[in-house]
Amino acid sequence: MSKKINTSRRNFLAGSATVAGVAAAASVVPLSIANANHTDKGAKGLPDFIKWKKRSALIIHSNKGIESHRGAIGSSIVTPIRHVYIRNNMPTMTDAQIGNKANWKVSIEGVKKPTTFTLAQLQGMGQTTLATVLQCSGNGRGFFAHKPRGSQWKTGAAACLVWTGIPVATLVKACGGLASGAKFMTGTGADMPSNMDPKKALVERSVPISNHKDAILAWEVNGVALPNAHGGPLRLVTPGMFGINNVKHIGKLAFTAKESSVRYMKSSYRISPIGKKGSQYPSCWEMPVKSWITSPLANAKSGSVTISGVAMGGTKKASSVKVSVDGGKNWNSAKFTGPDLGKYAWRQFSFTTNLKKGSYKIVSKASAGGKSQPKLRMENRRGYAHNGWLDHGLDIKVS
Amino acid sequence: MSKKINTSRRNFLAGSATVAGVAAAASVVPLSIANANHTDKGAKGLPDFIKWKKRSALIIHSNKGIESHRGAIGSSIVTPIRHVYIRNNMPTMTDAQIGNKANWKVSIEGVKKPTTFTLAQLQGMGQTTLATVLQCSGNGRGFFAHKPRGSQWKTGAAACLVWTGIPVATLVKACGGLASGAKFMTGTGADMPSNMDPKKALVERSVPISNHKDAILAWEVNGVALPNAHGGPLRLVTPGMFGINNVKHIGKLAFTAKESSVRYMKSSYRISPIGKKGSQYPSCWEMPVKSWITSPLANAKSGSVTISGVAMGGTKKASSVKVSVDGGKNWNSAKFTGPDLGKYAWRQFSFTTNLKKGSYKIVSKASAGGKSQPKLRMENRRGYAHNGWLDHGLDIKVS
Repeated sequence: MSKKINTSRRNFLAGSATVAGVAAAASVVPLSIANANHTDKGAKGLPDFIKWKKRSALIIHSNKGIESHRGAIGSSIVTPIRHVYIRNNMPTMTDAQIGNKANWKVSIEGVKKPTTFTLAQLQGMGQTTLATVLQCSGNGRGFFAHKPRGSQWKTGAAACLVWTGIPVATLVKACGGLASGAKFMTGTGADMPSNMDPKKALVERSVPISNHKDAILAWEVNGVALPNAHGGPLRLVTPGMFGINNVKHIGKLAFTAKESSVRYMKSSYRISPIGKKGSQYPSCWEMPVKSWITSPLANAKSGSVTISGVAMGGTKKASSVKVSVDGGKNWNSAKFTGPDLGKYAWRQFSFTTNLKKGSYKIVSKASAGGKSQPKLRMENRRGYAHNGWLDHGLDIKVS
Repeated sequence: MSKKINTSRRNFLAGSATVAGVAAAASVVPLSIANANHTDKGAKGLPDFIKWKKRSALIIHSNKGIESHRGAIGSSIVTPIRHVYIRNNMPTMTDAQIGNKANWKVSIEGVKKPTTFTLAQLQGMGQTTLATVLQCSGNGRGFFAHKPRGSQWKTGAAACLVWTGIPVATLVKACGGLASGAKFMTGTGADMPSNMDPKKALVERSVPISNHKDAILAWEVNGVALPNAHGGPLRLVTPGMFGINNVKHIGKLAFTAKESSVRYMKSSYRISPIGKKGSQYPSCWEMPVKSWITSPLANAKSGSVTISGVAMGGTKKASSVKVSVDGGKNWNSAKFTGPDLGKYAWRQFSFTTNLKKGSYKIVSKASAGGKSQPKLRMENRRGYAHNGWLDHGLDIKVS
C-alpha cells in the first residue's frame, strides 16, 4: 500500500541527490502571449483532437503532452479551457467511440447495491459545482537536472477549473452505502483500446477512500460540456489529488479493499529515488503546497511593478504567499486577490513594489495546512511533485 | 438627479399597466445546445467582430444585440466568454482604432491631481479580481406584453464574469483623493465615431459615487485579455449596476458633482411608465434581485429531475432561492451549489425532485438584502429591469 507524499518522505528522497546551485530556468514566452486575446484561429499546429484550443497559449511537447504557457493562465483564477494543458496516457476517445453521450454508462461497485447509471440518469439525481486545481504529477519536471523521461513541463501542466457533476457521496448513498472493508476509491477509464493488455494499458487509479467525500463525476467544465480531450463525457474529479487520479472517460467507480494492480497504479506514478522504482514508493496522490509567478515573465519597466501568480495547497487551503525579488534573501507578504473558490482551487496573489533598473530573481513561497514550500526539489526518478520555490522563480530584467 | 430603483418606485410604476394573466413564454432552444460542446467553428452567421464566439450558443437579434441561449451559460458560475451576450450602442472599436493596447490612455478627473495613465502604467500599479453579473438593462424585455422597442431579450442578456484590473479606489488614492463635491462617478467611452454629436452618441454614464469603492478598470475577463467586443482594452466595471454603466473602451473617468447631460444618461435608460419619458424617472442603475431556471429547458424524463438555475442580488448577496413546479402555488427551498464568488456574482442553485408524467410550470424566486422577486413585471416604457418571477418561468413536459 502506498504512502502519502509528506515532508518526512520528501526529506528522505531529497537526500539522494545534489540540488544546490541549480539555477531556475525562466520560462521565455513570445511577448505577444501576455497581451494576445483569444480571437486567433488557434488550430494551426495542434493535434486534431484539440484543434479548438488556442495555439499561441500552448507549448507542444508531443501529441499527448501539451503545456500552457506560463503567461496563458491569466489572472482570473479559472483557466480558460482553450489554454488548458493536455496529458494523455491513452488516446482521447472520439465522438464515434463515445456514441450518444446521454447513454454513457458508469458502474458503481463496492457498494451495497452495485448499479450502472447512464449520464442522463446521473444528471437527474443531483448536481454540484467544484473548483479544483488539475495538475500533472510531472509538472515542474523540466527543472530537474537529471532530465527524467517524460514531457519537460515547467509550470504549465496545471489549471484551475470549475467542474459540475454529481457528488460521489450522492451516488454512494443511492447505492445503499459503501460495502464493508472499502479502503480505496478506484476509478477505471473506458479509453483503453481493446487490443491492449489491461495490466499495461488500463488507466485505473486508486485513491484513499476519504477522497470520495468531496469527489464528483463531472460532465461539465468551465460552463461547457466536458470535451472529449479532457475526459468527456464523464470524468472522475478527485480534488487535491494529482491529475492522473482524475480518471478520464470514467466507466467504473469501485470502492475496493486494495489498490488496483495495473501498471498505472502499481509501478507508474511512484515517487522513487533516482535509479530506483517499485510499488513500495509513494504514489502520486495529494499535491503538495506550491506557487509560481505568472507576471511579469521576463521584462518590466522601472517604477511600480505588480508581481502576480498562483498558489495552491492540494487538499489544504493556501493560507499565505510571500514574494522575494532577490532570490529568497528578503521576503514580502503578497495579498490574495479575487474570490476564494474553496480549498481545492488555487488563489491568485499580487504584490506591488518599486523596482529600479537591474536584474532580479523573483520567487514565491506559499504556505498551506502549516507547511511551506521547500527551497529545493525533492529529487526523484521521474521528476514528480516538484514544489521547490527556487526552481520556479524567474529572472527578470527591469529597464 | 435620478433615484435608485427601489420597491416603492416599482409599485408606483407597476400600477400603470395591467399585468395579470400574461403567461411566461418558454425559451425553446435546439436540443443540441444543452449537450453541445465548444468544438464547433462558431463563426457562421456571426458579425465579423465576434466571429470567435460560439454561434450555437447565441441568438442574433441584430448586429448590436446578440443573446445567449438560456441553456448556454452552463452550471459552472462563470459564463464562457464565447457564449456571452453583446449589446453595443456604438460600433466595437477595431484593433486599428485602438492601436498599441499598452498605450491606451484613460484620464482621471475630479480628483486632487488629475492624471492620465496608460494601460501599461495601470498594470504596474496594482491589480484585483472581481466577479460580477453583467446584465443589459433590457434583459427580459421579450416578456413585456406591449412589445417595447429594442432587442427582445429573454434571459440571455446576462453573464457572470471574472474581471481583472486596477481598483478605482487605488487610482483615486494615486491622484490625491477625490475633489470636493463629487457625487457621481462618470465614465466616458472613447468609442464614439468622430463625426457624431456627443450629446446624442457619446456613451457617458454617471453612477452614485459610492459605487467607486468596489469598481475596477478591467483589462482582462475570464483569464483572457479583454476582447474589443466587450470593451477592450480597458473597461469600467461598476459592480451591481446594469450593463450600460460598465462603460466600454473607457477613455475618461471623472468624479463629478452632477450627472452627465448626454442622451445616454439624461433620457435613455430611464424607467418611465408606458407612454412617458424624461430625466425625472429613475436611471438604470442597481440591478434588482432576480433568478431564472437554466435546466431543464423544455422536456424531462419522469423520475428524479434536477432543476437548476442562477440567482443574483445586484449589490446585495443572494440569500436564498425557492423553486416551484406548479407555477408558484407551492414552493421548495433550492440549495446553492458551488463556490460563492462574492455579492456581485450570481450563484448557481439546484433542486432535485421526483416528477411524474405531465405538464409543469417551473418558476424560481430569489431573495437578497431582505427583498424577494415580485411575481409580476414592473411595467415600463422601454421594458427595463424585469425581475418578475412568473414571466421567467418555464413550461416543462415530463414524459
